[in-house]
Amino acid sequence: MIIILSSNATDRNREDIVENLKARGFGVHLSVGVEKTVIGVIGAMDEQKAEVAEQFEALPFVERCVSISKPYKLVGKSFRTEGTKITVRGVTIGGDQAVVMAGPCTVETEEQLMESARAVKAAGAHILRGGAYKPSTSPYSFHGHGLEALKMLAAARDETGLPIVTEVMDARDLETVSEYADILQIGARNSQNYSLLREVGNSRVPVLLKRGMAVKIEEWLQAAEYIASAGNYNIMLCERGIRTFETYTRNTFDINAIPALKELSHLPVIADPSHGTGKASLVAAVTRASIAAGADGIIVEVHPHPEKAIKDGAQSLTPAAFSAMMDDVRKVAAAVGRSI
Amino acid sequence: MIIILSSNATDRNREDIVENLKARGFGVHLSVGVEKTVIGVIGAMDEQKAEVAEQFEALPFVERCVSISKPYKLVGKSFRTEGTKITVRGVTIGGDQAVVMAGPCTVETEEQLMESARAVKAAGAHILRGGAYKPSTSPYSFHGHGLEALKMLAAARDETGLPIVTEVMDARDLETVSEYADILQIGARNSQNYSLLREVGNSRVPVLLKRGMAVKIEEWLQAAEYIASAGNYNIMLCERGIRTFETYTRNTFDINAIPALKELSHLPVIADPSHGTGKASLVAAVTRASIAAGADGIIVEVHPHPEKAIKDGAQSLTPAAFSAMMDDVRKVAAAVGRSI
Amino acid sequence: MIIILSSNATDRNREDIVENLKARGFGVHLSVGVEKTVIGVIGAMDEQKAEVAEQFEALPFVERCVSISKPYKLVGKSFRTEGTKITVRGVTIGGDQAVVMAGPCTVETEEQLMESARAVKAAGAHILRGGAYKPSTSPYSFHGHGLEALKMLAAARDETGLPIVTEVMDARDLETVSEYADILQIGARNSQNYSLLREVGNSRVPVLLKRGMAVKIEEWLQAAEYIASAGNYNIMLCERGIRTFETYTRNTFDINAIPALKELSHLPVIADPSHGTGKASLVAAVTRASIAAGADGIIVEVHPHPEKAIKDGAQSLTPAAFSAMMDDVRKVAAAVGRSI
Amino acid sequence: MIIILSSNATDRNREDIVENLKARGFGVHLSVGVEKTVIGVIGAMDEQKAEVAEQFEALPFVERCVSISKPYKLVGKSFRTEGTKITVRGVTIGGDQAVVMAGPCTVETEEQLMESARAVKAAGAHILRGGAYKPSTSPYSFHGHGLEALKMLAAARDETGLPIVTEVMDARDLETVSEYADILQIGARNSQNYSLLREVGNSRVPVLLKRGMAVKIEEWLQAAEYIASAGNYNIMLCERGIRTFETYTRNTFDINAIPALKELSHLPVIADPSHGTGKASLVAAVTRASIAAGADGIIVEVHPHPEKAIKDGAQSLTPAAFSAMMDDVRKVAAAVGRSI
Repeated sequence: MIIILSSNATDRNREDIVENLKARGFGVHLSVGVEKTVIGVIGAMDEQKAEVAEQFEALPFVERCVSISKPYKLVGKSFRTEGTKITVRGVTIGGDQAVVMAGPCTVETEEQLMESARAVKAAGAHILRGGAYKPSTSPYSFHGHGLEALKMLAAARDETGLPIVTEVMDARDLETVSEYADILQIGARNSQNYSLLREVGNSRVPVLLKRGMAVKIEEWLQAAEYIASAGNYNIMLCERGIRTFETYTRNTFDINAIPALKELSHLPVIADPSHGTGKASLVAAVTRASIAAGADGIIVEVHPHPEKAIKDGAQSLTPAAFSAMMDDVRKVAAAVGRSI
Repeated sequence: MIIILSSNATDRNREDIVENLKARGFGVHLSVGVEKTVIGVIGAMDEQKAEVAEQFEALPFVERCVSISKPYKLVGKSFRTEGTKITVRGVTIGGDQAVVMAGPCTVETEEQLMESARAVKAAGAHILRGGAYKPSTSPYSFHGHGLEALKMLAAARDETGLPIVTEVMDARDLETVSEYADILQIGARNSQNYSLLREVGNSRVPVLLKRGMAVKIEEWLQAAEYIASAGNYNIMLCERGIRTFETYTRNTFDINAIPALKELSHLPVIADPSHGTGKASLVAAVTRASIAAGADGIIVEVHPHPEKAIKDGAQSLTPAAFSAMMDDVRKVAAAVGRSI
Repeated sequence: MIIILSSNATDRNREDIVENLKARGFGVHLSVGVEKTVIGVIGAMDEQKAEVAEQFEALPFVERCVSISKPYKLVGKSFRTEGTKITVRGVTIGGDQAVVMAGPCTVETEEQLMESARAVKAAGAHILRGGAYKPSTSPYSFHGHGLEALKMLAAARDETGLPIVTEVMDARDLETVSEYADILQIGARNSQNYSLLREVGNSRVPVLLKRGMAVKIEEWLQAAEYIASAGNYNIMLCERGIRTFETYTRNTFDINAIPALKELSHLPVIADPSHGTGKASLVAAVTRASIAAGADGIIVEVHPHPEKAIKDGAQSLTPAAFSAMMDDVRKVAAAVGRSI
Repeated sequence: MIIILSSNATDRNREDIVENLKARGFGVHLSVGVEKTVIGVIGAMDEQKAEVAEQFEALPFVERCVSISKPYKLVGKSFRTEGTKITVRGVTIGGDQAVVMAGPCTVETEEQLMESARAVKAAGAHILRGGAYKPSTSPYSFHGHGLEALKMLAAARDETGLPIVTEVMDARDLETVSEYADILQIGARNSQNYSLLREVGNSRVPVLLKRGMAVKIEEWLQAAEYIASAGNYNIMLCERGIRTFETYTRNTFDINAIPALKELSHLPVIADPSHGTGKASLVAAVTRASIAAGADGIIVEVHPHPEKAIKDGAQSLTPAAFSAMMDDVRKVAAAVGRSI
């Protein structure tokens, strides 16, 4: 860490802070400039540094503290240089194959789910998505069929062979959801629910961690670090768009995040163009873009009858549109050296 | 709700949608224009409308659905025109007096807490704040002393008579926290953790609901509606800054939200200039501004030695700075017809 | 346009507004609901509607006005359904070929420019970019070599045959810049400088219109409408990233904007992954993504020695990196049915 | 400036960069840590540093460059510690009195302007605002009466004695506008139009510089530095809201910016609650807040008949509402030790 003193800091201030640092066991490297004095803090472990930073910025004669280490370790590239591969029921995420997760936003009925599952399987999807527990902005909206939906998902898996990804919203449901799910999804609104992150960290079920709407890339990696530090390394990072001033789309899909995560972390990266755009008409283009940018897979909403969907109809593809998109995505994947 | 058809919608499309609406029990008001056709949907209850909106936007010949009712009821001005007053241990929030909640970010030690509590009481604060369970971006940071901290808060209340506000992060801690807290704080990162909102809704302890970093005012009111719809009407809305592109401050304090909430809702509004700015040097100005804008109170971080604070030192006031600020705030409160 | 009255509007209010609308020559379609009254305004021309909207929202008993027509015409899809093609010195933008514009941020010296021009030509670029007049956040930074740089660009065009795109910042320089440039670039900070937009609209030189940092897609199309309404239809829309809370990248490249513009407008869309990311290490991935999403071309910064570049070194590619990127981009272009 | 090397930088890399810096005439202070090496660059002038920063960040073994000096000088607090006072026709901005600028968005007719001018004068305003040249998002909207409007403003000044503030959008209009205006307004969309900033810098007419919608505080001060560095020190900084994800209000008024500017700069700060909120119902509260936060004045839109206003009717106050607001603002001003 580097501490930059204000131009009004006195010699006495400087000596005080150096003494304070030494008393905490840090090495100190002093650089007295014409305009400003800079103090290099040596030997601290990361977690301590962050705290020290906050404390010293509180001093009136400190202008700024600059951290020179990353605030995460286990999920960082320097911890593991080759990419993490996660295998669920024979499907490997993070390998040569770009993985396609598809299905309805919400599990509504057995018919709706089976129709969706068969359609996405026929078009080449590898994993079935479907919501059993649903977060909704309004308390009066539909919140999912819960356990009943989990059972329908299991039945769809039995028939199609597709592994299941589904959201867990509450630590108290974790045991139940884990009985059925092959991948646990943490939604955007829970992406900094640290209690829940720790709990899925204690589990060994793979986790799909969505980015929160206002979460920076480095904070997202720290959220993943919560899971990893509790022992679960099977984490996929899912970009689903961030909230910006643009209103034509539901969110702004942050395509930069895909190569950025690839240079910062060893974890697989999944793109969610359905939430990233909020408009079915834009999903295929952003899916192609994500694969071209290096995503390890996509998760996309498909509904047999979007106009009758309980939730997210506007961003759901019909089976026909999904199938057409898959044909195009296969070509793009091949162009970047991947199969689908 | 109003459904605007695309200019390429056919007569057949129009008839289909009208039939569909009638089959769902809605009244329909058709307005066929030169450029576009607009369908008014009559008689639906709010919650249904939101769902219908999503479904119809999925139709390729529908351009847009416009909701004409508010997505919340119980917390809205039309439900209750006069302001809600909440009383905790003799302190009334939402009345003529602007209420001051102050104390350290985190309960660190008995000494630190008692010193803080005495100082804020002496300067005129009405309620003591202090964190027992702390959300931290990094898993390696300090997460609070938990139950032990709650007990220290209770001891500080015993001595000073100040009621306590403290955060609850996990539904599983709710019972414990409720035993000690006079006001339950829901933090920004849990502001859309709907499981937790429902649980504090089932409680009868007053709730201080912070705004999430990327939460719109209408979504925030829907989060409050979760609590109210579960039966707990004792809700305070706490503006604590939103996340924007500006980096000089930690957050952008949304002063507009104060009068906006006052015209949309009957709930008391509290300002948090500590998180809203992230800089101790800006706290007093934003506190004065909040009271001048009509806030019913403030919550502010005070630490006897900010440079030694475990968290949020940079935004914590010293007791002396807090006391000086209170003198100024009193004058501003009087100027807008309130006492402190 | 649709006017939604507040729930407290009286019959008298409603009659007043209807009369007012009729007096202005509008047709009126009234829909009195249980909760709210909705007035449809018929027959207005677009420009009038926008003004009427502002006026009526000022009335205390009007809750909201909803526009149902697009605020632009000439650049919209409904004005021209097939895509606009723009040809400069034999290079067609908006056709089957994805067009690559490359070169240094700033024209520094004859050697630097010629080295850049030869390198990008050798790697397959179609158009040479280079700044003669440079906007800089600081008044003390370098502002470009002006006319001298324009002459160097012309010399580079003479040798390589590559047409030139360069920025014009001031209406007073337009004549000079137009003498040399094949395409006039309007920079992000001038994207709503309406005087300048009108002037390039009066010109017939093709225009590359960058999106402003906080400009919505619909506002961007209105900026293009300024140019088109003055008579110049040769406009390319250039996505270069928007400003968000994310700080790891310089801007957030809005990949959604590419298919969104394609469904709203007939104008060619160009991607600028250099400014869109601000980091050379991310440029190739976002370039591939843009082409996969349907962009008609890219504009990218290439410098023979990025570490010596006067500006934008951090986001400039070396000739070797550019050449390697081009190989990959060719494959992606082929996958979406385009040549390069 | 501080250069932080990547953990993979070799000794050779380090020596190269040190040599490079010395060759440019910089002093170097080397700090080799266990994890990372940090190089302090000594003796550079600000403007050079910024350029060096960009160049060195381009090197693959440099992780980050951290500037330790402010990117502006003349407008900074360290250049001049006491606040700048600007006097126009006897009205002093930046002194003990908080200054009120009020009037219609746009000069429409002589009657409308005179009615507005008399009303705002009667309620206690010190300066008359009114637009002669108007930026509009749509090319088809009204763009102001230009010279004719300037003459009407001068007539209103003759009658009421109120000095005039009006916008200049184009350097080519500067001479004409300067003949009539007492204060030149630079609008938000031109806040980084550097050609125009330089031109008003060459003038000696006081300037009201609005903040751009996506402009950071430090960039805004650099825009002011453009004007100051050309010789015009009579600059007022006008906060008018920034663009965020919130849609209930037109912009998010950044109240933090007021005390932030006061600690960074000696220039007077003016608040524009009309654009900062976009809603007449919120203007009074944000005006009170701005004065309480330390603003040196406000600029506010008042129209005799907001519902007939050509532009900005929704955010314009009636004379009666303005007058009532002034009564409240006087009390708040007094509470913070200022007159009005």
